[in-house]
Amino acid sequence: MSSVFGKNTKISIFGQSHSAAIGVTIDGLPAGFKIDMDELHAFLSRRAPGNSEYSTPRKEADMPEFLSGIVDNTTCGAPLTAIIRNTNTRPGDYRNLADIPRPGHADYTANIKYKGFQDPTGGGHFSGRLTAPLCVAGGILLQILKARGIFIGAHICKIGSVSDKLYDPCNVSVEDLYCTSEKKLPVIDKEAALAMSDLILAQKAVGNSIGGAIECAIIGLPAGIGSPIFDGVENRIAQCVFGIPAIKGIEFGCGFEVAEMTGSQNNDDFYVDDNGLVKTATNNHGGILGGISSGMPVIFRVAVKPTPSIGIEQNSVCIPTNENTKLTVKGRHDPCILPRAVPCVEAAAAIAVFDMLCESI
Amino acid sequence: MSSVFGKNTKISIFGQSHSAAIGVTIDGLPAGFKIDMDELHAFLSRRAPGNSEYSTPRKEADMPEFLSGIVDNTTCGAPLTAIIRNTNTRPGDYRNLADIPRPGHADYTANIKYKGFQDPTGGGHFSGRLTAPLCVAGGILLQILKARGIFIGAHICKIGSVSDKLYDPCNVSVEDLYCTSEKKLPVIDKEAALAMSDLILAQKAVGNSIGGAIECAIIGLPAGIGSPIFDGVENRIAQCVFGIPAIKGIEFGCGFEVAEMTGSQNNDDFYVDDNGLVKTATNNHGGILGGISSGMPVIFRVAVKPTPSIGIEQNSVCIPTNENTKLTVKGRHDPCILPRAVPCVEAAAAIAVFDMLCESI
Amino acid sequence: MSSVFGKNTKISIFGQSHSAAIGVTIDGLPAGFKIDMDELHAFLSRRAPGNSEYSTPRKEADMPEFLSGIVDNTTCGAPLTAIIRNTNTRPGDYRNLADIPRPGHADYTANIKYKGFQDPTGGGHFSGRLTAPLCVAGGILLQILKARGIFIGAHICKIGSVSDKLYDPCNVSVEDLYCTSEKKLPVIDKEAALAMSDLILAQKAVGNSIGGAIECAIIGLPAGIGSPIFDGVENRIAQCVFGIPAIKGIEFGCGFEVAEMTGSQNNDDFYVDDNGLVKTATNNHGGILGGISSGMPVIFRVAVKPTPSIGIEQNSVCIPTNENTKLTVKGRHDPCILPRAVPCVEAAAAIAVFDMLCESI
Amino acid sequence: MSSVFGKNTKISIFGQSHSAAIGVTIDGLPAGFKIDMDELHAFLSRRAPGNSEYSTPRKEADMPEFLSGIVDNTTCGAPLTAIIRNTNTRPGDYRNLADIPRPGHADYTANIKYKGFQDPTGGGHFSGRLTAPLCVAGGILLQILKARGIFIGAHICKIGSVSDKLYDPCNVSVEDLYCTSEKKLPVIDKEAALAMSDLILAQKAVGNSIGGAIECAIIGLPAGIGSPIFDGVENRIAQCVFGIPAIKGIEFGCGFEVAEMTGSQNNDDFYVDDNGLVKTATNNHGGILGGISSGMPVIFRVAVKPTPSIGIEQNSVCIPTNENTKLTVKGRHDPCILPRAVPCVEAAAAIAVFDMLCESI
Repeated sequence: MSSVFGKNTKISIFGQSHSAAIGVTIDGLPAGFKIDMDELHAFLSRRAPGNSEYSTPRKEADMPEFLSGIVDNTTCGAPLTAIIRNTNTRPGDYRNLADIPRPGHADYTANIKYKGFQDPTGGGHFSGRLTAPLCVAGGILLQILKARGIFIGAHICKIGSVSDKLYDPCNVSVEDLYCTSEKKLPVIDKEAALAMSDLILAQKAVGNSIGGAIECAIIGLPAGIGSPIFDGVENRIAQCVFGIPAIKGIEFGCGFEVAEMTGSQNNDDFYVDDNGLVKTATNNHGGILGGISSGMPVIFRVAVKPTPSIGIEQNSVCIPTNENTKLTVKGRHDPCILPRAVPCVEAAAAIAVFDMLCESI
Repeated sequence: MSSVFGKNTKISIFGQSHSAAIGVTIDGLPAGFKIDMDELHAFLSRRAPGNSEYSTPRKEADMPEFLSGIVDNTTCGAPLTAIIRNTNTRPGDYRNLADIPRPGHADYTANIKYKGFQDPTGGGHFSGRLTAPLCVAGGILLQILKARGIFIGAHICKIGSVSDKLYDPCNVSVEDLYCTSEKKLPVIDKEAALAMSDLILAQKAVGNSIGGAIECAIIGLPAGIGSPIFDGVENRIAQCVFGIPAIKGIEFGCGFEVAEMTGSQNNDDFYVDDNGLVKTATNNHGGILGGISSGMPVIFRVAVKPTPSIGIEQNSVCIPTNENTKLTVKGRHDPCILPRAVPCVEAAAAIAVFDMLCESI
Repeated sequence: MSSVFGKNTKISIFGQSHSAAIGVTIDGLPAGFKIDMDELHAFLSRRAPGNSEYSTPRKEADMPEFLSGIVDNTTCGAPLTAIIRNTNTRPGDYRNLADIPRPGHADYTANIKYKGFQDPTGGGHFSGRLTAPLCVAGGILLQILKARGIFIGAHICKIGSVSDKLYDPCNVSVEDLYCTSEKKLPVIDKEAALAMSDLILAQKAVGNSIGGAIECAIIGLPAGIGSPIFDGVENRIAQCVFGIPAIKGIEFGCGFEVAEMTGSQNNDDFYVDDNGLVKTATNNHGGILGGISSGMPVIFRVAVKPTPSIGIEQNSVCIPTNENTKLTVKGRHDPCILPRAVPCVEAAAAIAVFDMLCESI
Repeated sequence: MSSVFGKNTKISIFGQSHSAAIGVTIDGLPAGFKIDMDELHAFLSRRAPGNSEYSTPRKEADMPEFLSGIVDNTTCGAPLTAIIRNTNTRPGDYRNLADIPRPGHADYTANIKYKGFQDPTGGGHFSGRLTAPLCVAGGILLQILKARGIFIGAHICKIGSVSDKLYDPCNVSVEDLYCTSEKKLPVIDKEAALAMSDLILAQKAVGNSIGGAIECAIIGLPAGIGSPIFDGVENRIAQCVFGIPAIKGIEFGCGFEVAEMTGSQNNDDFYVDDNGLVKTATNNHGGILGGISSGMPVIFRVAVKPTPSIGIEQNSVCIPTNENTKLTVKGRHDPCILPRAVPCVEAAAAIAVFDMLCESI
């Protein structure tokens, strides 16, 4: 595997769903930053399972133990490692997964890649549980970014056919970014939230699941960040965000809508605002031109597939006998992963952005 | 900038639109591969300007000179460097770009990042012209991949509101991949091609441009390729493909459609085919599960924004005076970049895939 | 800091001398290798403190707990993380180190780099204790290499003015490599060992310490490994080995002796041996030509400085007052670090070699 | 191969001895630095062949053509590529090298690694000629470093049994660093230079060659540079310097002498100097403690083996027949590579140091 991301600030994620622990090392943190542990816990609880009717009832504190890298909660320059012990596991649920791969999961591809030696319990290293250490790293970096005036937020912008209000791409505010962070369903529009809730619970009732999309915005990022051709803002955010399981697409600014636009529609006019700052009148470019931040809000959306673990019988194969078979996935699963994926997207964005900020040229 | 991509096989791109030359170094090529120069030239000519009414009339041979890395057209293990001399340039067209940034271009962000020292002529290192060396590298790697039974092709799947037929995600063939490669408009469906042509020429007539989307497929990729969490197939293809200017989104398999799907709809059933091979009955996962190739065709689509250089007057700012102003971009531009972007997407995919194949674990 | 090493197999080391734990993550291990835990413990005990009169009496088990990456002691492809809890610490010994840097230590430079926020207790991340996780990673990789017929061993070749017998550079055997591994002083020649012991104990008696040199050999490495110019065998071993604190020099083959040699003396003649294999008659090149392994034993030596922590009063400065002062280092220290550094050198060599083996081109 | 070095500023070297050209790309240069071309040419001429009786008579201008990255000799932020055309080649001299490897050269190991497809003429990518692009990159970075108050110089400190005066490790001045740069033999002490000259010419007369050592100093480097454990100052300089062919050892500060020192001898006392700056009274640590620069001069020495190409008959093997044979190397060769290696060492040091400076944490 290659679970290390970053050039100057490197994030290394480890653990399997049911190994002794999962965790993360952040190498290259600036020394002297005091981590607000309450804020970190609040952030992590947004990702934690069991706190709403939309997620698996597997309930875990998921609060990290810090093994190194901090003294009195303040970074000391040494690599920071935090772990979360795995408890409350039910390995029996997954016993036959090594033999019969679950559709939509990594069971089959992991079996090929690791020649049958992969850890199948609970999805092993491919479990969504591995987003917990991603959020530990991201939660810390979000705090460091905030101290530098850079704010990141995300919300569910779509579940099924129901869409949320989008951020105002030119004027998204810190309040906008944070207004959904305490909601069970992090959605801006109340009506949309209700309709989404109905959709999710309807799928839950039949043992099925449903997908969606998440919108993320980064404000306060100075112009001039990103190193094209291959380490531009889109390249790096995309590389990091695809580390979140279930994400199948990413688009910046107008994204796939540009296919239907003309140049005069898509181009964002420059103007000098009342404070003498150069801005764009629209933000179809999503805050990135030529791979470099423009100073406008960075806006992107990701597509999140429905949880592949469903309670409905599916067709699969039995690897040892190489024959077709049926599979019914047991265990506890999220009917919709979107609410818990929102902080993961914020975390991944923070990780990518902070590493880019560390490039001095 | 950071114009180097790859871990085991590194691609390093250099040059500006109007510098002495542009070029690429490929470090880490296997020794002993004989490059078919005719095939390479044919591939490069698909990206070259001036060969249809859809592109800028700037006509250049764009055939590379090889400085190193080959003996008798056969790779020798040393880094391969190929350059393309810049000729037929018209620097006068771009003289005031350093002062008045073109909307939708990198002029403004480059000016911030490089403090006014960037090369503004023709977009400098941000010019679409830099995709020529990308295609030199990609064209060579496509040949090496083909010799290993891995085939990559792409076509325009959308321009404006007109859509092309998509590849059959489970059964795309080598013929399907290559059937559009000699067309002026690389589109599968003839009716769609005609409609797209009308759209492009209509925008050209008014000095405007139009965007679109490209679909790419990779077949023959063995199951088990890709190193999640951060170097999985989606992560690496995305990081590389966003190196092509104008791309604003990427989606794999069903992509953003997953937002409207349930788990039972999106999950692809496994089955054993007549040859005893494990396949999936559908390919919503786009050949990638958990970041690892499944053996099914890898399918992705990218959104391509309309060429930002248009002949219509636009609002911009004068950097030295910090005042609003008007700008009319002169010079020769593509009314639609899609036809020339298709081989670039194939090249970027080949670069990402080959580097992943070089990982032995 | 940048405590990550490797391209395909990445080693990430974390922890401070007196943090909750120290540890290592190995990302990119091949799946399916069963770790021999007894052998690993035996290897680690060679580095452990307290097992001879030459080392600090700080006695710790230093046996790792595996958090992830193995199932039934067998690698599963996921990142392997092992930690060692810190116990038996005496933080009081180091209390004033943040103010008065110890000569020869990283106290001063860490204070500058981390702006006073570094963890000063016990040397923090700069402690020799961090070689324990290095040895965990190296010990596992040594086993994997051995299974592939590649053997690595090292011995003290010099302490003060006393030299050990060197390996026969052309014919070093597996037995030669392992013959010192159970000795308190890993020295080949018994007379030399006695003389070295006297030297160490004499310095210990006066609260001083003494330096030395270590010779390492790698046998069974196939010809053709290493990727020059910058990832050749010397480049990579050197980069990794300088990660061991106290190492101030490295030389391959004849090393610094080449300064006094002519070409005809230094060049190693090629010949075909009785089995039809190409070998060199001498091995002045230390098994590396042009950065690539030749198939002959890889031989290198490193210089190890005397433990900087000594019981003798030294001159230093008081950082807060910026005045000269005196310092007497308290605590328990090795009068000679060489015995414990020998397995560290083997570990670093294994880490560098294994990563090079993972390059398929 | 892996001819790319660096994290934030990447150097990519390409070319073979007798390919169309050799060259280098520097990716990640700061924009706005005006290169002094006369100074660069003067630097490169120190490495160029044919300018003294100590080197091969192969005479080449070796002045680079800049393909990209500069506008009016000023860096523009885009990757800088410079090439040197190969002329005055005599491929006939090397015709049988693919079959009969030269002792001490990479002919044999390259043949194994590249399966016979390597370019054998003139050593291909392994030729000392590839240090020309290394010096182009290094020469530019030396200028940028100088503008920031960081100066690097080197001299021959040993040839055969003759030693030069060493730099004063605590007080080496800019004048000291530059005092040898215009000498045919870059040696500080005149008597030593004469004796060395005699040694070289004596070996030249008999078709043999001789080795030596080079000392390099870096002054003005601020304290706090370097990222241990694996990207510390020693790690990075060593990794880069071993990219120079013929280097077989490197030592920092007292280097291998530490083996005979006690802690009280080797430790460098700290003191506050008359300007209130913290310094060390001696500089046995070579300006590096814990992998981080201390603010004292960084001092290192490298061992350079005698040119392996000698005019004396040697034993080798014939690869196609797998039989022993004799070989007499024809062609023009340096009886002593040291004079030309001195600027290469400066260049490699500059490349490593500049990349470390670009790390903002």
